[in-house]
Amino acid sequence: MQTLNVELGDRSYPIFVGSDLFRTEYLHPYIKGNQVLIVSNETVAPLYLQQLKAALPSLQVDEVILPDGEQFKTLEELSAVYDHLLQCRHNRTTTLIALGGGVVGDMTGFAAACYQRGVNFIQIPTTLLSQVDSSVGGKTGVNHPLGKNMIGAFHQPQSVLASVDVLSTLPDRELSAGLAEVIKYGLVYDAVFLDWLETNMAGLIGRDSALLSRAIYRSCELKAEVVAQDEKESGVRALLNLGHTFGHAIESCQGYGNWLHGEAVAAGTVMAADLSRRLGWISSDDYERVVNIFKLANLPVAAPAGMTADEFMSLMAVDKKVIDGQLRLILLRSLGEAVVTDQFDPQALQQTLNHFTS
Amino acid sequence: MQTLNVELGDRSYPIFVGSDLFRTEYLHPYIKGNQVLIVSNETVAPLYLQQLKAALPSLQVDEVILPDGEQFKTLEELSAVYDHLLQCRHNRTTTLIALGGGVVGDMTGFAAACYQRGVNFIQIPTTLLSQVDSSVGGKTGVNHPLGKNMIGAFHQPQSVLASVDVLSTLPDRELSAGLAEVIKYGLVYDAVFLDWLETNMAGLIGRDSALLSRAIYRSCELKAEVVAQDEKESGVRALLNLGHTFGHAIESCQGYGNWLHGEAVAAGTVMAADLSRRLGWISSDDYERVVNIFKLANLPVAAPAGMTADEFMSLMAVDKKVIDGQLRLILLRSLGEAVVTDQFDPQALQQTLNHFTS
Repeated sequence: MQTLNVELGDRSYPIFVGSDLFRTEYLHPYIKGNQVLIVSNETVAPLYLQQLKAALPSLQVDEVILPDGEQFKTLEELSAVYDHLLQCRHNRTTTLIALGGGVVGDMTGFAAACYQRGVNFIQIPTTLLSQVDSSVGGKTGVNHPLGKNMIGAFHQPQSVLASVDVLSTLPDRELSAGLAEVIKYGLVYDAVFLDWLETNMAGLIGRDSALLSRAIYRSCELKAEVVAQDEKESGVRALLNLGHTFGHAIESCQGYGNWLHGEAVAAGTVMAADLSRRLGWISSDDYERVVNIFKLANLPVAAPAGMTADEFMSLMAVDKKVIDGQLRLILLRSLGEAVVTDQFDPQALQQTLNHFTS
Repeated sequence: MQTLNVELGDRSYPIFVGSDLFRTEYLHPYIKGNQVLIVSNETVAPLYLQQLKAALPSLQVDEVILPDGEQFKTLEELSAVYDHLLQCRHNRTTTLIALGGGVVGDMTGFAAACYQRGVNFIQIPTTLLSQVDSSVGGKTGVNHPLGKNMIGAFHQPQSVLASVDVLSTLPDRELSAGLAEVIKYGLVYDAVFLDWLETNMAGLIGRDSALLSRAIYRSCELKAEVVAQDEKESGVRALLNLGHTFGHAIESCQGYGNWLHGEAVAAGTVMAADLSRRLGWISSDDYERVVNIFKLANLPVAAPAGMTADEFMSLMAVDKKVIDGQLRLILLRSLGEAVVTDQFDPQALQQTLNHFTS
């Protein structure tokens, strides 16, 4: 087991990465009152809920089980969490525990951010994607029919348990989706890590525990460094959204839940790489490396069939990175270095969109 | 016009108190982007919306008009604000302006706290209650069927315009409800202010502008001092809830919107004073002074007919001030000094509840 500390002053917290983490000693120190609400979903609860509850003796432990899927990441479903908290009379010292993927984590964190104007929470991410991405950094929230993650808050957890054991029950498609974000860290920040990923992708896809632990730890470490520098995403943290502006447009157009977030990010990152190539920032060989590593991870490298350039433009215009009508994108200066910029030729963007759409 | 500064480090903001405040010079410096969404209600918008819009030239100004009343302070109505923001493509630099009473202010502030994980907002409170209470201190939120203000956030405005002009259209009953909170400041913090209020209550009820300005300014000043000391209500700020634990139980039992918040606080404060008297902390003469000043302000000094002691106990048990099952109350040590305590004889509380209920 390795411990990583996210340094955020009085909001600092540890991430535990490894095996056999559902233990009282990793949980109790981060629970201040005598009440806990576990939030999970219909898929994960049957697998791990009892194991978690066994590690929480001597506490009032309540649970709420949400339906599984991005399409349920809504204000309406969030109400169910508040209903449980109030029906079970949870007070300001309660701790919410998110047991599930990114949807459960984001919703639980947001519920904790707003219940009685803020209570504690612990993240137990059960997908690779949520372990390396949404459980680090305190972004919480729900979707709106007109845009993803449009309603939310910054709220840091008390601790995160990133267990490689739970990845044994993760579907192949979700494992690949998580690897999309892992690859992103290499592309944005760390060319050496990118090389390592290319070398070890077969082992990662084969669920080698040691390789997965290393990939999770390095991804969390890179994200923790960025979040410590820029908690509220006013600067360098925005780079983590490589591929996300294109990707969100894909998810939004397809309806949440049809494409996995990581799949949309993979295709979106390929589109961002294509635009970077057209601007002359990366070479055609670099572009092919980007395409190939996503292919090695069994991820899509093209936009959904039938999606039009106009649909992309329209959906990208509501992205949170639009400031006063000006679209900003995360693009690649080189493999291992990304920039956020509104300084790009709009014609090049149009060419990228035309290239990837019908 | 007088200006009061609420000192909260990088979240500090001014409160302008006086006449003729719907002017560009008081608004534009607090709007950073080129988009504004005015949130108002069906009662206030016909009276003041055009005047406010005229003071916002050269901006994209959108509006959303909510139904009027505490019963609409819900997550469902909040969705309407997000719908408007997204339909009108407001980005992270947008500013929300709350034009209305406490319900509009709390909902607008909460909408701003969570839209794209936090945007700016300006408060223009149009009731005496919201001018002296909810517009100072950054508490925002909505109600839940099982408890008032159970879902919310701390989010400070960029500025507050407290206009005495708008009080000319306020119904008598709402003016009195606002005076309940003004009286509370005297009881909790300032015996001299309490004396001044007793002397001038007839003039305040008669809507003398100079007296109202002075009462608003002093109330905001006292609240600003408290909020500056204790932004997140971990200590001294809790005293501002004198009468609120009993009062919230009254509002919750009667259904939100039937008793005005200030009316419930008045009756709740009389109950807290009664308990303080039974504990030997204040004299019977002091208790009569408390009853009388609320009567002078045309406010209720008894619980609603038909409400039982058991209903009070049950509803008070979900109060946010309950920590690990222990009820804490704000009580009077003397007129001008309150304490938050769980050290009271439960039998005395039962006697107070029996005295005020059937």
